[in-house]
Amino acid sequence: MAITVVGSVAFDSIETPAGKRDRCLGGAATYFSLAASYFTDVRVIAVVGEDFGPAEEAVFRNHNIDTRGIERAAGKSFFWQGSYLDNLNEAKTHATELNVFGAFQPKIPDEYRDSEFLFLANIDPVLQRRVREAMPQARLVAGDTMNYWIKDHRPALLQVLKGLDVLLINDTETRMLAGNSNLVKAARAVLDMGPRMLVVKHGEYGATVFHKSDHEAGARPFRAPALPLEEVMDPTGAGDSFAGGFFGYLASQPTLTPATFRRAMFYGSVMGSFTVERFGTERLQQLSREEIDERFNLFRELTHLD
Amino acid sequence: MAITVVGSVAFDSIETPAGKRDRCLGGAATYFSLAASYFTDVRVIAVVGEDFGPAEEAVFRNHNIDTRGIERAAGKSFFWQGSYLDNLNEAKTHATELNVFGAFQPKIPDEYRDSEFLFLANIDPVLQRRVREAMPQARLVAGDTMNYWIKDHRPALLQVLKGLDVLLINDTETRMLAGNSNLVKAARAVLDMGPRMLVVKHGEYGATVFHKSDHEAGARPFRAPALPLEEVMDPTGAGDSFAGGFFGYLASQPTLTPATFRRAMFYGSVMGSFTVERFGTERLQQLSREEIDERFNLFRELTHLD
Repeated sequence: MAITVVGSVAFDSIETPAGKRDRCLGGAATYFSLAASYFTDVRVIAVVGEDFGPAEEAVFRNHNIDTRGIERAAGKSFFWQGSYLDNLNEAKTHATELNVFGAFQPKIPDEYRDSEFLFLANIDPVLQRRVREAMPQARLVAGDTMNYWIKDHRPALLQVLKGLDVLLINDTETRMLAGNSNLVKAARAVLDMGPRMLVVKHGEYGATVFHKSDHEAGARPFRAPALPLEEVMDPTGAGDSFAGGFFGYLASQPTLTPATFRRAMFYGSVMGSFTVERFGTERLQQLSREEIDERFNLFRELTHLD
Repeated sequence: MAITVVGSVAFDSIETPAGKRDRCLGGAATYFSLAASYFTDVRVIAVVGEDFGPAEEAVFRNHNIDTRGIERAAGKSFFWQGSYLDNLNEAKTHATELNVFGAFQPKIPDEYRDSEFLFLANIDPVLQRRVREAMPQARLVAGDTMNYWIKDHRPALLQVLKGLDVLLINDTETRMLAGNSNLVKAARAVLDMGPRMLVVKHGEYGATVFHKSDHEAGARPFRAPALPLEEVMDPTGAGDSFAGGFFGYLASQPTLTPATFRRAMFYGSVMGSFTVERFGTERLQQLSREEIDERFNLFRELTHLD
């Protein structure tokens, strides 16, 4: 099944203890698309500026990602500059320039309208909702958000949550959204806001999925590990890559059983683990499905008793 | 096989968002012994004051824990007062009174000398080493330590590490001991200091075991989850209970294979998860082996794909 993703395609300047990169291709929709492209067809809705050239276009094309929904606007692309010099788990933002992204009005190509899977990456919840409503045929809808929307755009965000099957956010965002510091109680409160499933991303400790009814058979909380990595070069995009692996795997499967969702959690964690091994999307650009499945098996070994 | 444990038996006054308790039975050796007692015979070496009465003695006796190595000294027992009001993951210490523990000289009863398993709980590394050397017959020796010894008593601690098979510490202690913020590199550096295995406890995210040679079959890093808990009443003693479950299970097994160690990691996590559900040792005092194995299965479900 094809996935349509709406979100940012951007340039990032990143500094970490391992080095720095200037203006490398980034953005949530980019990481998501590349990660998901190893599993299924992906279609992107985004806006870029005149600085988005053939080299960037080729990154998507090389992974058979449909870019007809990437609008070219006059001006510069979304730009983010950040560093992780003190703490690899938390970016320090030095600059955020919305540029053409500031006036983004998602336009959905007709060819995208049969997408059965829809991912609403972290953008203004007003836009997330508009895209969701414009694609009523989507049978599984997942989304992401961040502290800024949770704090200052709550009513719009709550509208989005009502239309989501799966919300993927991190521990801090979960606690903030629910106003509860206990993760299990916070998860239940978030599930009461709409989504059937909540995937809480724990960074280097993996991720846990909570279900609206955890009394359903096979729908208890499930935790996927993250691999203890020797070399974390750049954590940018790990969460979006998790979402891409998770949702891409789901979209590639003929039926969605509890076991499918558990495996999807592992694939999410696998894709996140690859991303952080190199700067930006470097590692995501050069994977093979064999490498992915090899690491999937490593993750299984990491947590399985027998 | 019997385990001998040396460590603190204390009184704790604890305040958490769920309430408070004054002078409840605590101390690393207490939590460890109770947790391990569900798996095997446990013998304690400690010192207590005149405030340690029949009620406290009964807690150990009810679990068939050998208390002949608990010395009674004139004065008061070790006392700790702390709170977790702001952050359940980090205790704020309000008072530490060493009392009789300040002059602790471990005395090993002759009846303990055939113990094949030895656990050196978090005490002065000079004492840990002395006990280890006095029990040369121990064929598996594990231990714990803390930031204070790592920072200010490093040479003595390094001597202890040379004699350990398994060191169990948390993330922060691992990074501090190794002087490296990357967990995998830090783990390797710690393993170079002596222990064959390092168990890094991640609090609410479980624990990971690293092996000296991760190229040995079955000796790759292994991660046990922690259960996402709705009610964390009091985190005191979770790490010591982990150690008790981990080491107690090992001591109960006829052979120690890589699979045994993986299961021991799960049992450690299980015992930690029980402890935090009630104040102090309340929950640990009232378990059954059936409840423990039921939760073990829950943990398996939480992370296993099939």
